[in-house]
Amino acid sequence: MEDINLHFTGDFSAVEKANNLLSALIDNNLHSRQYSLGLDPTAIYWKRVMDMNDRSLRSISIGHGGRGNGIQRMDGFNITAASEVMAILCMAKNLKDLKHKLGSIFVGFTHDKKPVYARDLKAQAGMALLMRDAIKPNLVQTLEGNPAIIHAGPFANIAQGTNTILATKMGLSLSDYCVTEAGFGADLGAEKFLNIKCGYGHLAPQAMVLVATIRAMRHHGGALKEEYNTPSLDRVKRGFENLEKHIENCRKFGLHPVVAVNRFPSDTREETEYIIDRCAEMDIRAVVCNGFAEGGEGARELASAVVSELDSGRNHFKPLYDWNLPVKEKIGTIAREIYGAEGVDYTEKAEAGLETIQRLGIGHLPICMAKTQKSLSDDEKRIGRPRGFRVTVREFEFAVGAGFIIPILGDMMRMPGLPSVPASEGMDIDDDGVISGLS
Amino acid sequence: MEDINLHFTGDFSAVEKANNLLSALIDNNLHSRQYSLGLDPTAIYWKRVMDMNDRSLRSISIGHGGRGNGIQRMDGFNITAASEVMAILCMAKNLKDLKHKLGSIFVGFTHDKKPVYARDLKAQAGMALLMRDAIKPNLVQTLEGNPAIIHAGPFANIAQGTNTILATKMGLSLSDYCVTEAGFGADLGAEKFLNIKCGYGHLAPQAMVLVATIRAMRHHGGALKEEYNTPSLDRVKRGFENLEKHIENCRKFGLHPVVAVNRFPSDTREETEYIIDRCAEMDIRAVVCNGFAEGGEGARELASAVVSELDSGRNHFKPLYDWNLPVKEKIGTIAREIYGAEGVDYTEKAEAGLETIQRLGIGHLPICMAKTQKSLSDDEKRIGRPRGFRVTVREFEFAVGAGFIIPILGDMMRMPGLPSVPASEGMDIDDDGVISGLS
Amino acid sequence: MEDINLHFTGDFSAVEKANNLLSALIDNNLHSRQYSLGLDPTAIYWKRVMDMNDRSLRSISIGHGGRGNGIQRMDGFNITAASEVMAILCMAKNLKDLKHKLGSIFVGFTHDKKPVYARDLKAQAGMALLMRDAIKPNLVQTLEGNPAIIHAGPFANIAQGTNTILATKMGLSLSDYCVTEAGFGADLGAEKFLNIKCGYGHLAPQAMVLVATIRAMRHHGGALKEEYNTPSLDRVKRGFENLEKHIENCRKFGLHPVVAVNRFPSDTREETEYIIDRCAEMDIRAVVCNGFAEGGEGARELASAVVSELDSGRNHFKPLYDWNLPVKEKIGTIAREIYGAEGVDYTEKAEAGLETIQRLGIGHLPICMAKTQKSLSDDEKRIGRPRGFRVTVREFEFAVGAGFIIPILGDMMRMPGLPSVPASEGMDIDDDGVISGLS
Amino acid sequence: MEDINLHFTGDFSAVEKANNLLSALIDNNLHSRQYSLGLDPTAIYWKRVMDMNDRSLRSISIGHGGRGNGIQRMDGFNITAASEVMAILCMAKNLKDLKHKLGSIFVGFTHDKKPVYARDLKAQAGMALLMRDAIKPNLVQTLEGNPAIIHAGPFANIAQGTNTILATKMGLSLSDYCVTEAGFGADLGAEKFLNIKCGYGHLAPQAMVLVATIRAMRHHGGALKEEYNTPSLDRVKRGFENLEKHIENCRKFGLHPVVAVNRFPSDTREETEYIIDRCAEMDIRAVVCNGFAEGGEGARELASAVVSELDSGRNHFKPLYDWNLPVKEKIGTIAREIYGAEGVDYTEKAEAGLETIQRLGIGHLPICMAKTQKSLSDDEKRIGRPRGFRVTVREFEFAVGAGFIIPILGDMMRMPGLPSVPASEGMDIDDDGVISGLS
Repeated sequence: MEDINLHFTGDFSAVEKANNLLSALIDNNLHSRQYSLGLDPTAIYWKRVMDMNDRSLRSISIGHGGRGNGIQRMDGFNITAASEVMAILCMAKNLKDLKHKLGSIFVGFTHDKKPVYARDLKAQAGMALLMRDAIKPNLVQTLEGNPAIIHAGPFANIAQGTNTILATKMGLSLSDYCVTEAGFGADLGAEKFLNIKCGYGHLAPQAMVLVATIRAMRHHGGALKEEYNTPSLDRVKRGFENLEKHIENCRKFGLHPVVAVNRFPSDTREETEYIIDRCAEMDIRAVVCNGFAEGGEGARELASAVVSELDSGRNHFKPLYDWNLPVKEKIGTIAREIYGAEGVDYTEKAEAGLETIQRLGIGHLPICMAKTQKSLSDDEKRIGRPRGFRVTVREFEFAVGAGFIIPILGDMMRMPGLPSVPASEGMDIDDDGVISGLS
Repeated sequence: MEDINLHFTGDFSAVEKANNLLSALIDNNLHSRQYSLGLDPTAIYWKRVMDMNDRSLRSISIGHGGRGNGIQRMDGFNITAASEVMAILCMAKNLKDLKHKLGSIFVGFTHDKKPVYARDLKAQAGMALLMRDAIKPNLVQTLEGNPAIIHAGPFANIAQGTNTILATKMGLSLSDYCVTEAGFGADLGAEKFLNIKCGYGHLAPQAMVLVATIRAMRHHGGALKEEYNTPSLDRVKRGFENLEKHIENCRKFGLHPVVAVNRFPSDTREETEYIIDRCAEMDIRAVVCNGFAEGGEGARELASAVVSELDSGRNHFKPLYDWNLPVKEKIGTIAREIYGAEGVDYTEKAEAGLETIQRLGIGHLPICMAKTQKSLSDDEKRIGRPRGFRVTVREFEFAVGAGFIIPILGDMMRMPGLPSVPASEGMDIDDDGVISGLS
Repeated sequence: MEDINLHFTGDFSAVEKANNLLSALIDNNLHSRQYSLGLDPTAIYWKRVMDMNDRSLRSISIGHGGRGNGIQRMDGFNITAASEVMAILCMAKNLKDLKHKLGSIFVGFTHDKKPVYARDLKAQAGMALLMRDAIKPNLVQTLEGNPAIIHAGPFANIAQGTNTILATKMGLSLSDYCVTEAGFGADLGAEKFLNIKCGYGHLAPQAMVLVATIRAMRHHGGALKEEYNTPSLDRVKRGFENLEKHIENCRKFGLHPVVAVNRFPSDTREETEYIIDRCAEMDIRAVVCNGFAEGGEGARELASAVVSELDSGRNHFKPLYDWNLPVKEKIGTIAREIYGAEGVDYTEKAEAGLETIQRLGIGHLPICMAKTQKSLSDDEKRIGRPRGFRVTVREFEFAVGAGFIIPILGDMMRMPGLPSVPASEGMDIDDDGVISGLS
Repeated sequence: MEDINLHFTGDFSAVEKANNLLSALIDNNLHSRQYSLGLDPTAIYWKRVMDMNDRSLRSISIGHGGRGNGIQRMDGFNITAASEVMAILCMAKNLKDLKHKLGSIFVGFTHDKKPVYARDLKAQAGMALLMRDAIKPNLVQTLEGNPAIIHAGPFANIAQGTNTILATKMGLSLSDYCVTEAGFGADLGAEKFLNIKCGYGHLAPQAMVLVATIRAMRHHGGALKEEYNTPSLDRVKRGFENLEKHIENCRKFGLHPVVAVNRFPSDTREETEYIIDRCAEMDIRAVVCNGFAEGGEGARELASAVVSELDSGRNHFKPLYDWNLPVKEKIGTIAREIYGAEGVDYTEKAEAGLETIQRLGIGHLPICMAKTQKSLSDDEKRIGRPRGFRVTVREFEFAVGAGFIIPILGDMMRMPGLPSVPASEGMDIDDDGVISGLS
């Protein structure tokens, strides 16, 4: 676990370096008298990235200290998981396609308002070279010796949230069943997996598992953090509406999910049964999964249920929206159908972003929402199944190379900050290398 | 080679992350109302690092965009190889010592002019944790199956220039002979190896090899870049004074170096013989080394010469200066004895740095010069054996955790910039993953 | 004219200096270790001013170059006419009141979120001292020897738009009739004069003159700039709706305006008569005023009409809104009643401003809109009498000392920029001091 | 007095506005796509000015907030008295010459390293227009009705220190004797008057008055601030060497000064006599001047002494150096001959400035030193007649329009800062307009 959480598989490091090589090439070109592309320093859209929660780097002014240190301009860092390079790694079919997509990254405009792409800076080969190992999926094994592929790590709140198309295709070619994890709530990871990755990868999932926990149900039913482990049928009853909404959402894609109730010690039988019963009323199979404690044995019932669902023949995947719809309609569809919003507002900055989309001619790309994972809405305080709310698109980022448009909702940040008491304070490593405090 | 040059062994990534975690903790503390240490934002000495040549990041203003994005202040990026964390990795005796040294990093001053260290921010455990793999030496093998240890990579111009003490000690414990490479010219890598690393590691080298090439001698004799491969006894004669100075320098450490003339196809016999003869006049053994073309066989003569020298009993290592001398005297000694300078000038900023050294009570630490590798002086245009020059200390950095003081000479930059035509433009990776243009 | 336009009466210079003295005191306090008020550098609301159209100064980062140059923070310049100090000069009853109001200027918040006022920095005396001459009204005379008082110059788009209360009171005490000019359209200068200045000065105007031109009517009827001097009854007919709206607006204050049609050479009889007739239908007296060409004689008919209106007894001034209403209601009232908007939107930044208003307890202050003078709406492209539009409050400024709240509408800037070809390029002064190009 | 100290004569306001108009035109041109001169934003030398002690404005980053707010670059404010526009006003022969000099202001370099002048931005006419009143000398009268001309106010430490050539010429044409005050010590105001203004104005002063005080002599003899009013013959004896040096300096210009001892109540007879005697030994007439207490009557003896000196025929003015000497020689001459320094050091930045002087071809211009007025050296702590010191040129500014080169010595700032307790805190104006605390 430590290896994966602390340094992952080296993918992050390669993505970061490739991303920042492009940034360095941009500033080098701005600085060059001889090879200038005429880039407008106030119209650069490409940002640097760092794999660190560091709010102070969100908005920075670079190139201070005189001409030797480059041209002064505003820039900012996103977190590495939010890099378009990470998204491209996830979407690339092969090395050739990777290079092509890297070259298609939109960098910014010239003084004459002409778009500049990474290929105009001859950046794609150098970037691809840094990623020649990262593009290879990592095959690891579980404690029981089962194969698992870990490949790239875009977060589902700020990015598209699932691993690479290459990894999924490899999985499909190697075994009868291939399961892809889509991070955070199904409003984020699943929505993006189904609308974006399945589109680009020509994938048609034949079953779906919704992972739920009693603890989460208590939370959505109003429990405070310190009450998550306190059994309460009342709260579970109230919180169930959150799961209900996710089930409804899955059906909009033509899929009837199996609900996996991830078992925790504090779960009571009446809470568990309530969920199983309510799901049954919706014609949905819910099973308790105890894989964490019992390994493969604990997930046997879940596996059987999924195979039954697969064999039922009633799952017919279809995406939620047509990529060719106008941008606002695509965003509106996700907001209304998946989040349950009444509508979408756009700030002035977002409206300017829509004009940029027009100018770049990328209105036909799918939508990759950046939204809090803590609520179905864009306001993390709204728990359960929020109703009667609107969402706000604050601004856009443009992932032309990866092939999607990123509306940023509410006060979502693509570079998080550290909490008042940073998690690192609680971590330690003793003189023998034993790690503590990593959760 | 690509693995080492492009991503090294993961050490760089870990060092970078640990370095930048400390930066994030600093800015988080500045931002905090509750846990503030009273750090003065105009008196932070710790910089971020990135493994990229990126002049635009040398001097930046961070924390723009309002309180949510932190407190505005000037910062800058050094190249990762110049990070004090890299130096600490090289100097650490074990994990415990690593944590201690990380905690001793000097961060900056409070508004009341009190020094703040990384331990005051409780940073050392989190940083050490990120480096728990990096601290383990990497054992690799040559094409002929000989063992080699690659561990950390501080450049010898901007940093202390050799691998870790742990790697050296491991080498010493595993074989009869252990060779450490010290980068760039002997005025840089060797000087720092002998004065700093040998001091901290309690090492006493028993022999020394000076690597020379005919090409370099031609360069120091006045050849232009396009003439390096053109034989010219005249130029070799003129350029020999550079090698002569390095030999003299080695003797100041009580060592009589063996000169290894690394063979190139363009070398002529008269040039090679000239060098061997001149060395012999100085009572120094010079041998041609053809290891690159012939492997171990090509280095056999060199190895014999080194063993002879070892057995001669005439090498008695002693450091060049006493760490307890005043800072200016230590710097002056290196400048006069090793570089051949007539004296040292200090800018106003450097004088201010000397006051900071006093305030921190670190005047007893050894000196780690940051100087161009292209000349014995601090001016890269002075080739051969420069005479009649002074060097200028522009400013200081303070590596309290690693245990040395860094005077920055001339216009040396601890963050390089890209050339007009970036090297990455010439690189490529084809559809089958074959790399070209990497030199 | 040149004296007034180029250097005004010295009021601007004094206002600018007093404003910027407060800024210097703020930064001096931030810089001070000993006398610090704990001001949060990210929560300073007070801006510097300069009497120059200079977009580059709108948003700046100050205090660079190390501690000797102060603490780094974002700041910006407004144009001098937009300074709260100018507004305070206009609202002050006497020197004592001036000092009190200057002391009440809201500066920003401490780290503990406590508001800081100019008096906390002991700034008011020094500021008042710089304004001791500026507070004295300037009595000048027209070419015919009629007295006129010129005193302070806040623009009606970005500020409150009329001269000082002191000047008006002086005028009232010295003559039978006292006319106050309120700048730009009646939706700006007049609205603010009637709702703010009349409130603070306990003034009750007994008549009102609406100044109109045929040229303006043609513009509002669709004429391009180069067609303003081309007679067109059609356009005048279409453009009349703008004047009609202003007349309706005046009546909402209990006033029946006399319309003065300022005569231009290109006016035709049928256009003029059309206006007079349409006004008559509204029971409004419209007269041609030729004061520019004929002096007092040319304005005789206008003067008679105004005296008749005064004597009619049908003007009973009342303000448009009660200051004690909630802020959004006051803004909504002005927007709907005066501009004809359907509603008001607030950006996120504006909503944050409303919270600041709450925290400062200043919700009871009157509203001083910052809006373009080119349209009744907040969009300068909407001419005539716009319908079916909403206005947007982008952000707020807080003039606690002057006694009002400033909502900034649309993309109104309180610091204008120079045009592509700056006006100064067309100006000249020859060797004998004769000025040309000043319009 | 208040009028002169607080707002002077309006000259400052006009100079400030003209200076900042040029800045706005520069940034407007940088911002313009259509009319761009190709100015390099990192190579702008022209700074804004403000008549305020405001350290936070010394180094600022402007143009933040996106393209609408201009192009981001570093800028800074000098104090208005240091503006080259002020210097040009002082040096201009007439309106035509004023415009010519304004047009010759050096602004910065293009990307192609070509110099850009104010005339390239068509700035001179607009600037001159703002100064058309400022160019007229202000004739005021003393309490006794004697005429005095006050015109412009460049400080003698940071600028050239005397009033305009126009004012001096007017004085010469109107009366038999015309006295020009040259500010601060004779090492500053007098040196610049004699070497720069006399050169440009073709003036040959026929006598010189050195103003001295017993208090100052006590200071230079070691008295602390609180001891300035304590009689001490010892300190006067020691401090006399400062006056002695100034007398020697005057003689280097061919002038034998009359020493005016400005009388203070604390002066004792023995102190005064000591000075008179020591001067007499140097063949210099020293007289007590009591003009402050007794008006013209108190200065009668001084006036007689000056007339005698004039009639003596022994004063033959000659400048200290030939303008055609190399820049370093001119600076060296002033430093050695006037300050008594042993030599001059140049920082790296100053050396770069010398290259700019070469590139602009302005090496033949006279030198206008910026140096502390508190010492003959560049270190304000060295009182009396410092010996055995060197001065440091930190950087250069280039006043091509005014016609001189400005070396900045030591830590002299052309924008001062406020003290910890700003002077404005001690000032007040009561409700009746009576001012206190202005000293």
